[in-house]
Amino acid sequence: MLNMEQFTKKLDGLKFDAMYQNDFLLTWDKTGDEIAATFAVADALRHLRENNISSRIFKSGLAVSLFRDNSTRTRFSYASAANLLGLAVQDLDEGKSQIAHGETVRETANMISFMADVIGIRDDMYIGKGNAYMREVAESVEQGHKDGVLEQRPTLVNLQCDIDHPTQSMADMNHIIHHFGGVENLKGKKIAMTWAYSPSYGKPLSVPQGIIGLMSRFGMEVSLAHPKGYEVMGDVEKVAAENATKSGGKFTKTNSMAEAFENADIVYPKSWAPFAAMEKRTNLYAEGNQAGINALEKELLAENANHKDWECTEALMKTTKGGNALYMHCLPADITGVSCKEGEVEASVFDRYRVPLYKEAGYKAYIIAAMIFLSKCENPQAVLKALAGNQKQRWFK
Amino acid sequence: MLNMEQFTKKLDGLKFDAMYQNDFLLTWDKTGDEIAATFAVADALRHLRENNISSRIFKSGLAVSLFRDNSTRTRFSYASAANLLGLAVQDLDEGKSQIAHGETVRETANMISFMADVIGIRDDMYIGKGNAYMREVAESVEQGHKDGVLEQRPTLVNLQCDIDHPTQSMADMNHIIHHFGGVENLKGKKIAMTWAYSPSYGKPLSVPQGIIGLMSRFGMEVSLAHPKGYEVMGDVEKVAAENATKSGGKFTKTNSMAEAFENADIVYPKSWAPFAAMEKRTNLYAEGNQAGINALEKELLAENANHKDWECTEALMKTTKGGNALYMHCLPADITGVSCKEGEVEASVFDRYRVPLYKEAGYKAYIIAAMIFLSKCENPQAVLKALAGNQKQRWFK
Amino acid sequence: MLNMEQFTKKLDGLKFDAMYQNDFLLTWDKTGDEIAATFAVADALRHLRENNISSRIFKSGLAVSLFRDNSTRTRFSYASAANLLGLAVQDLDEGKSQIAHGETVRETANMISFMADVIGIRDDMYIGKGNAYMREVAESVEQGHKDGVLEQRPTLVNLQCDIDHPTQSMADMNHIIHHFGGVENLKGKKIAMTWAYSPSYGKPLSVPQGIIGLMSRFGMEVSLAHPKGYEVMGDVEKVAAENATKSGGKFTKTNSMAEAFENADIVYPKSWAPFAAMEKRTNLYAEGNQAGINALEKELLAENANHKDWECTEALMKTTKGGNALYMHCLPADITGVSCKEGEVEASVFDRYRVPLYKEAGYKAYIIAAMIFLSKCENPQAVLKALAGNQKQRWFK
Repeated sequence: MLNMEQFTKKLDGLKFDAMYQNDFLLTWDKTGDEIAATFAVADALRHLRENNISSRIFKSGLAVSLFRDNSTRTRFSYASAANLLGLAVQDLDEGKSQIAHGETVRETANMISFMADVIGIRDDMYIGKGNAYMREVAESVEQGHKDGVLEQRPTLVNLQCDIDHPTQSMADMNHIIHHFGGVENLKGKKIAMTWAYSPSYGKPLSVPQGIIGLMSRFGMEVSLAHPKGYEVMGDVEKVAAENATKSGGKFTKTNSMAEAFENADIVYPKSWAPFAAMEKRTNLYAEGNQAGINALEKELLAENANHKDWECTEALMKTTKGGNALYMHCLPADITGVSCKEGEVEASVFDRYRVPLYKEAGYKAYIIAAMIFLSKCENPQAVLKALAGNQKQRWFK
Repeated sequence: MLNMEQFTKKLDGLKFDAMYQNDFLLTWDKTGDEIAATFAVADALRHLRENNISSRIFKSGLAVSLFRDNSTRTRFSYASAANLLGLAVQDLDEGKSQIAHGETVRETANMISFMADVIGIRDDMYIGKGNAYMREVAESVEQGHKDGVLEQRPTLVNLQCDIDHPTQSMADMNHIIHHFGGVENLKGKKIAMTWAYSPSYGKPLSVPQGIIGLMSRFGMEVSLAHPKGYEVMGDVEKVAAENATKSGGKFTKTNSMAEAFENADIVYPKSWAPFAAMEKRTNLYAEGNQAGINALEKELLAENANHKDWECTEALMKTTKGGNALYMHCLPADITGVSCKEGEVEASVFDRYRVPLYKEAGYKAYIIAAMIFLSKCENPQAVLKALAGNQKQRWFK
Repeated sequence: MLNMEQFTKKLDGLKFDAMYQNDFLLTWDKTGDEIAATFAVADALRHLRENNISSRIFKSGLAVSLFRDNSTRTRFSYASAANLLGLAVQDLDEGKSQIAHGETVRETANMISFMADVIGIRDDMYIGKGNAYMREVAESVEQGHKDGVLEQRPTLVNLQCDIDHPTQSMADMNHIIHHFGGVENLKGKKIAMTWAYSPSYGKPLSVPQGIIGLMSRFGMEVSLAHPKGYEVMGDVEKVAAENATKSGGKFTKTNSMAEAFENADIVYPKSWAPFAAMEKRTNLYAEGNQAGINALEKELLAENANHKDWECTEALMKTTKGGNALYMHCLPADITGVSCKEGEVEASVFDRYRVPLYKEAGYKAYIIAAMIFLSKCENPQAVLKALAGNQKQRWFK
């Protein structure tokens, strides 16, 4: 029989009962114990699957999927997580239009939830809207459950919003933990979350924000670097600063990529759009001002082009701790000479880190499954042990 | 162990063996016993789910879904029903174009059915086409099964056609039954199925037709109200009239919303397009006459605007039985000052009935599941008892 | 208990261990034993299903579906096969654009495969691209598995490419085997794979190529007939010629439909586009030369129209062996006077063969399931016996 105790013992020492029947919207809404429990369950579910043991906890049930933008990685991760637990994915196609409010949200949220166990939402296009929409949906189904409309209360999972991208940052963090051999080894390590040049425009802020909002909780030095004008949301910087203080780490800001890379243990160079510009774009969309949107795009691309030197080069990598910091990216990356003429990262750097990058991405499905699992199991330790004990093969060879 | 006898005893007294391996296309094709059996099974499946008992009767199998128009409510209800019984939904995307006939229908029907247990079709856009198409598909798979092409014969479920919307009207009826504490309490009650103003155009007739065609079977007075010119299909009115006579109820028509609301126990105010106009539109589409379609739309919107006083107001609600008739709608409703400037219902009325309206919608998935269940189980009582006895948890917490 | 020995005994005499954890891309990549094993497993899975025994070998897992073109038959066959074995279909929508290469393919292949057990790809639009893309995906996931990125290595199934259409030709072949009462009865039989006129343009070559590449392995005479200029890929003709020599059959070519039909036991009249023209079209697409594409289309339709006499008529059918050759088609066929004015086949011929044609199509889902099964089961005989022994009902009535 499988040894699940390595995982359940970790859980035994943690307090995470508030996760039961609850959503996962922002990592900083969760306690340190809850974050740790999520990693433990993700690893446990992975262990089950790698040992060909089914972790279906549902014989039927729906995982609603609402993506307001194209997505391959997150969509497949969500579908994989749902399937791993026994849920069928059902897409809700609302298009890319700005989201409805009030009555429409309340009604739709209930109409899709009569047999929904989970609702995964990706809505990162409009500043001030995505996370707010998720909360509106959450409140609607909460009320629906209280009113006796919904037999069960579906769990909301934030698959990327305007503020945070918790399934990404949690997957990234689990990659870091495994890479460094445990969370206890991270104290004092330096992670550089830095802007990098991309020939495309309007990349979401939720990745850098998610990274600084989460990585600042483990006693590391989080160095946020970007050209002037590429500021992220002030509120999230505040979260990062407070987290750093509490965890005995540091949160620093710089306008120099070199400074951030200097002696870093981990580097995460990635393009994003300035928060202020994204706010402006949101308003232009709300006004239906296409000319303004086009003008803004031109302006932003021109501004980007002033910072082509923000590239993760071999030379820069040499300045990191031992010359071999862990290079990270949420993928796809803009690779110089491969996917574009000039981009975020030199091809030889990317090549060298391809396998770890793919592994990094591989954590996401398990993180999502863990978020669902912890929301759906009142006693996760008992359920994990039962799954291991049942020994039901996932794949009967 | 769960008490399923409350449901199976009801079934024991009913004759519904003709439902086995049969379709559900129009409620008036079904006997009173068959309608009653559907309600009983819907309630039984709900009872199982609410007690966390799996009602999967399929280990594998497909539920084909063919929607010729956007849909959220019905699509999710169908997906939920399929999932509840263990079937995977597979979409057949034929677009919104007018439907093929003859060889193409016969061939496609067989090609999608090699492992299909159910085919759900929504096709309400063209008068004279939707239901006819469903029957063509049904005959094709019937023949395919006889010819040894299809190992099993998929069940057709009408998810809305040009004539009837049986999953809607059956869900609505089950809501009424539960609201009034049993079908035996409905004799002599009055239900007002009335037109209401909407700023949009071309809403299908299948809801009012489905309502008068079904609700007239329970000894109630069904009052159909609409402005002159907004007549529904004459054939369905005939069905309603005959049903009313047989059941000891009444079917009345009026051009006054006030008259219909007067002393009503139930009101169902909802916009629809005139049957004659929809027939005209169907012909214009067949001719590809876009100018004609546009002209007709303008004309119909203008005609609609003459009847803005057809609104379900608080004042009108006061005239109903005890001032508190059960307000019903298939959703989404056009709510005055909320989803439109002037609409079908005053916001305060809608607000007051929100919870019952959501509950009304919640019956649909179980109704669809019951239709499938009765078509797929030779001995539904035995299967229900076995499911309850197996005690397989749907959701292992 | 079900008698599975009729199938497992066949398997006992065959060597097919190389199919385990392997892809199915071209029939001529497979040995005769491997082809025979696929038919045996397809028949076994069908026997299980027809006896209402579940053949789920997966409790969870994804079957990724990547279709670069609309498809109903193959899509439903793939979905059916996946569902039969317990996998959920997850679509990857890459649109119809020409396919990316290198980094993008490698990355996407891994990103979709963390929990994917199968990847089915249909990509037949561009000469020199479809099969090459599948091999790139296969190499990427192979490498990903070796690198520890992918826990399991998904199986690639070719659902139609520019070269071969193995799930079609294998289904067709199984139909032939069953029609003639066993593969041992095929020696010396004549099959005419002939071009036929169609008013549409650009039909893929993979069907005739797949047919001559596979049917030439069973000691039959394969006669390939088409008007001058409608040559298929030379490489595949070579395969067919070599196969024929090895199997003691014949591979002949002619520009006369009458000659091919003469005394044929099986006829497969079907339109396709000339290989040279398809190559030209691929280049025009690569150049984005829409004017060139339009001109080529005109030219090809005009050329097609010179060969309206290439129709499978009653008169031609009379010249076949006993006047009753088995008429085959991958469907949908262009039926004269039914789906078009002048087409591939006379309506009365098609009518007479409708039931066998539908049955022919019905083999595909089982063939795909068998391909997956043989790739996923180390000991297929043991698994088949276990499934039969378990007696788990697919459909609990």
